[in-house]
Amino acid sequence: MPAAIILAAGLGTRMRSALPKALHPIAGRPMLNHLIAACEPVFDRIVVVVGPDMPALEAAARPHATVVQAERLGTGHAAAQAAPLLADYPGDVAVLYADNPLIPTATLARLLARRGEAGLALLAMRPADPARYGRVVTDAAGDVLRVVEWADADAAERAIPLCNAGVVCAPAAELFRWLAAVRAENAKGEYYLPDVVGLAVAEGRRVVAEEAAEADLAGANSRAELAGLEAQMQSRLRAAAMEGGATLVAPETVFFSWDTRLGQDVTVGPQVVFGPGVAVEDGVEIRAFSHLESCHVRRGAIIGPYARLRPGTEVGEGAHVGNFVELKAALLGPGAKANHLSYLGDVTVGSGSNIGAGTITCNYDGVNKHRTEIGAGAFIGSDTALVAPVRIGDRALVAAGSVITEDVPDDAMGIARGRQAVKPGRGFKGKKGR
Amino acid sequence: MPAAIILAAGLGTRMRSALPKALHPIAGRPMLNHLIAACEPVFDRIVVVVGPDMPALEAAARPHATVVQAERLGTGHAAAQAAPLLADYPGDVAVLYADNPLIPTATLARLLARRGEAGLALLAMRPADPARYGRVVTDAAGDVLRVVEWADADAAERAIPLCNAGVVCAPAAELFRWLAAVRAENAKGEYYLPDVVGLAVAEGRRVVAEEAAEADLAGANSRAELAGLEAQMQSRLRAAAMEGGATLVAPETVFFSWDTRLGQDVTVGPQVVFGPGVAVEDGVEIRAFSHLESCHVRRGAIIGPYARLRPGTEVGEGAHVGNFVELKAALLGPGAKANHLSYLGDVTVGSGSNIGAGTITCNYDGVNKHRTEIGAGAFIGSDTALVAPVRIGDRALVAAGSVITEDVPDDAMGIARGRQAVKPGRGFKGKKGR
Amino acid sequence: MPAAIILAAGLGTRMRSALPKALHPIAGRPMLNHLIAACEPVFDRIVVVVGPDMPALEAAARPHATVVQAERLGTGHAAAQAAPLLADYPGDVAVLYADNPLIPTATLARLLARRGEAGLALLAMRPADPARYGRVVTDAAGDVLRVVEWADADAAERAIPLCNAGVVCAPAAELFRWLAAVRAENAKGEYYLPDVVGLAVAEGRRVVAEEAAEADLAGANSRAELAGLEAQMQSRLRAAAMEGGATLVAPETVFFSWDTRLGQDVTVGPQVVFGPGVAVEDGVEIRAFSHLESCHVRRGAIIGPYARLRPGTEVGEGAHVGNFVELKAALLGPGAKANHLSYLGDVTVGSGSNIGAGTITCNYDGVNKHRTEIGAGAFIGSDTALVAPVRIGDRALVAAGSVITEDVPDDAMGIARGRQAVKPGRGFKGKKGR
Repeated sequence: MPAAIILAAGLGTRMRSALPKALHPIAGRPMLNHLIAACEPVFDRIVVVVGPDMPALEAAARPHATVVQAERLGTGHAAAQAAPLLADYPGDVAVLYADNPLIPTATLARLLARRGEAGLALLAMRPADPARYGRVVTDAAGDVLRVVEWADADAAERAIPLCNAGVVCAPAAELFRWLAAVRAENAKGEYYLPDVVGLAVAEGRRVVAEEAAEADLAGANSRAELAGLEAQMQSRLRAAAMEGGATLVAPETVFFSWDTRLGQDVTVGPQVVFGPGVAVEDGVEIRAFSHLESCHVRRGAIIGPYARLRPGTEVGEGAHVGNFVELKAALLGPGAKANHLSYLGDVTVGSGSNIGAGTITCNYDGVNKHRTEIGAGAFIGSDTALVAPVRIGDRALVAAGSVITEDVPDDAMGIARGRQAVKPGRGFKGKKGR
Repeated sequence: MPAAIILAAGLGTRMRSALPKALHPIAGRPMLNHLIAACEPVFDRIVVVVGPDMPALEAAARPHATVVQAERLGTGHAAAQAAPLLADYPGDVAVLYADNPLIPTATLARLLARRGEAGLALLAMRPADPARYGRVVTDAAGDVLRVVEWADADAAERAIPLCNAGVVCAPAAELFRWLAAVRAENAKGEYYLPDVVGLAVAEGRRVVAEEAAEADLAGANSRAELAGLEAQMQSRLRAAAMEGGATLVAPETVFFSWDTRLGQDVTVGPQVVFGPGVAVEDGVEIRAFSHLESCHVRRGAIIGPYARLRPGTEVGEGAHVGNFVELKAALLGPGAKANHLSYLGDVTVGSGSNIGAGTITCNYDGVNKHRTEIGAGAFIGSDTALVAPVRIGDRALVAAGSVITEDVPDDAMGIARGRQAVKPGRGFKGKKGR
Repeated sequence: MPAAIILAAGLGTRMRSALPKALHPIAGRPMLNHLIAACEPVFDRIVVVVGPDMPALEAAARPHATVVQAERLGTGHAAAQAAPLLADYPGDVAVLYADNPLIPTATLARLLARRGEAGLALLAMRPADPARYGRVVTDAAGDVLRVVEWADADAAERAIPLCNAGVVCAPAAELFRWLAAVRAENAKGEYYLPDVVGLAVAEGRRVVAEEAAEADLAGANSRAELAGLEAQMQSRLRAAAMEGGATLVAPETVFFSWDTRLGQDVTVGPQVVFGPGVAVEDGVEIRAFSHLESCHVRRGAIIGPYARLRPGTEVGEGAHVGNFVELKAALLGPGAKANHLSYLGDVTVGSGSNIGAGTITCNYDGVNKHRTEIGAGAFIGSDTALVAPVRIGDRALVAAGSVITEDVPDDAMGIARGRQAVKPGRGFKGKKGR
């Protein structure tokens, strides 16, 4: 029954942002929430350390508890803020960083397992370019002797490839006792979390280092590094989609959300963007330049190119949604078609109905939204406005170019357009001076 | 007069697909058809080995013959299925793999030429990471002594960089005799095609290895590898377009079909997708986010951004097609313009005519498609519906906002819209509670 | 008070283009103009050497002077054409190449500073692959002894990593005297600019080499190399945007113009294209597939996805522009919304007004463009055509589906649509034979 402290108080000055660093999203989810999701399977309790005046961060952490670090006095000081909630905790406590959103649950599980072998376990890595990291000094058996900051390391220590990732795990009582003993006697006058390693060794505790891949421990201190985390997360999501039997014609141009679900034999063309909350069933084809968000696409449907599916949309089995078509809270029945330049908002379309090019549902009167109901087997002629609330019946026909303001019953035709006049000799004279 | 056997029976289990592996497309054409196209210039006869119940694969192979491998007993067994068609063939037979779609005709020609020097020729390569491939053991003169599977290779053999690509070529009678002699005495109980090399050497035949680039022999066993083949094919197509004098502002974001033809001084903006069957003449500008498919764009036209050209479309010299405009079976005359949010389906537009924003051709009545004819020098006002079949004459004018259901003669004006009423004091009250 | 000669006469045969090479654009600006912009802060006078019949190049060079190189007799001959304008120039003259558009001003400043130490300064680099470049032979102190062409170099010289970038700087009088002394006694019969180095050394002048990064000196002789320059420029622009506090979700899919300005906490989604002249204020969100050109987006606005902003557009604070919406010379007030499938050209929209889906401004009568004025707090119903010139008043309401041809006063409602008829039993019968 371990607990985790997540340090999320950082402002991220180099991000140049009004948003707390831990709230910057990766694949559509804040970094903090990625880390929380990785923690939840293995930690029974999670406490997030935030800075002062970060209500959005506190909201994002919910239902997990937050504590406020009022002064910025270093990582050791930040972790110590959780003492009122965790000092008496009857288990292990790990300290993690909110800007390490790519750390896998399996890595955390290995850290906890290693703690069972020793008084303190830490995460270490062998970065391709280790220069700026603190080094982990081990004995012949691989046990940790100490962690040395880069600035304090001698040449031999700097040659050590094993670097400290900053993550530690120890029994709660011990951890908080060591945190209380950490001193700020350094250039910056800060309390450093890694100093607990030295305190543990000094008390004769065995300290072990669990190694993790550098990529899994990647952090972000700038927008460029944030883009790097995003790229890595996208690589993972693309690989998983392809493993699951989806064809991505150009994976590097497809952008997923953390929760996108694709079925087997789904084909995704180039340049497609998935917002959060999208589920796509087997055999669906999503063509180039489509943008899907909080929607459900059923088996065998064809989406796009240039289809825009907004929240609350369900596309029925074998239905088609074509170019420059926007669906919002639209429920399309099986085999329904809306293929060209249409806005379908707050609408239900029955099975097999055809929505002509340029159809616009007028769902908003400036105050409220209203629904449009279209039955099964109906035909909505092109360039039609449907002024909601309105109902078009089963097998009803709406004449092209109509503005429909009253219900059209089943099997009836609705028509609402001006009479045509033709005026001979009043054709187009072209530009002056031609 | 050589012949080729193409092994295409593979299910591609790791693809997790209902589609036979050889039918997965690269640059808009199935892998099998890429290989067939590479073969046709140098092979007089092509036989494709398919699995049971693969009618789509048989159709894709046409007009070439197919034979069915009823049981999956290995590559040697698969090749042997062609015996009824090729055992008496009076020339060389090469055995190829349908999931090697990038192999160039020139490489096949070199293989055939090398066969003339020996009793059997095979294709070999020097992969960057050779680990999993069978090795080609040669004598001091470079002749092949044997091919050894990775699993059976000793340390010295594993250190050989020359790897077997699996492709062999020999006189038909010999090849089928050796295939008949191959035994399935191995762990998987399969008949392996490379075993013919040992049989040829055992009969005292000279065996030679023609080397090819690893990239040209790349195959696909998973969706990720399929994406890798696609990426490589796109690189080739982009390089060829630039060699031919087209500017690709961001080549890595432009996706071609295998048959896309671009003229000189064509400029292609970022994020453009070409479906099959597109020909673009000199001096055309294709702007960002455009999607072209089975269409012909004449000299000096401007396409996009966000233009969607669908099959059967011809865009005349110097014509403009702008944003959010869809053309389907649309014939635009020279200098015609359709620049904004329009759907033009089954339409002819005369030279110099202007199609206003929001024009919709109502070409489908739910049963049949009908054509719209627009003459030369005409002006179609914005937000107009043209209900086909209908003809708008030369120099005719259609008033904005009209629904046109009857022909408009040359030099005439057509108008069809409701009269405006203005109701004082009935303006917009805004949201409740404001 | 130094001067620069920019050699821009090259045809760029390998570009296969009718456009002079120096006019091919990088990030939306011709290569020549990138170089001129880099030169202007440090050179008081700039002379561009063009080929015969290149009026577009002369126009691009303005207000700087151009001289014509009538015959193509080499780089030395090209530089010498500037003699009538610069031979008596009382300062240093540097010779540069129009197809080196990435050279930074700081590098030019360093070249000029080094000239002060010697009789002639040149730019040198250490390319990753130096094979084809001329080599710079230096003495023990690093002073230049000679520049040797690759073809003329012996093995020891070819092993020198320091390569000649072709750029030289010397006092005007000396430079033109040396240029006049250059001989065309070589295989091609051309006058080579680097020969002035040998002439300077022969006269006992000290010659120094200022080193620059290979990437900063990159040139383009083919469309593929042009794409390489574009990619490098885009990398710089993306990095600068992120440094400035913008989030680029997928930087590799965002394309900037050389002059794009983004504020802090701007978020740019995947697949976004910026044409020239775009300024985006703080806190703006630009969603996927948007295309902006010569426009100004004010604080907190939301743009896209699929928004197309064309020249002359201003989007007010907190305004929303949504999918498949095109704005041209459109002035949107604070908080205005145009979220779906609309064309707004030559229009003013007052603060807080809502433009319904499918709204089309009919701004062009085939001869002239006219403006549409929409007041504050107005509500334009969906699928409406506004036939300009027309004015919709403050708090006015336009009924959905209307074609508005006359002004609608403040607080009034305008409506213009056909009456609806419903015809029972005349519904949709579906496809024949169903």
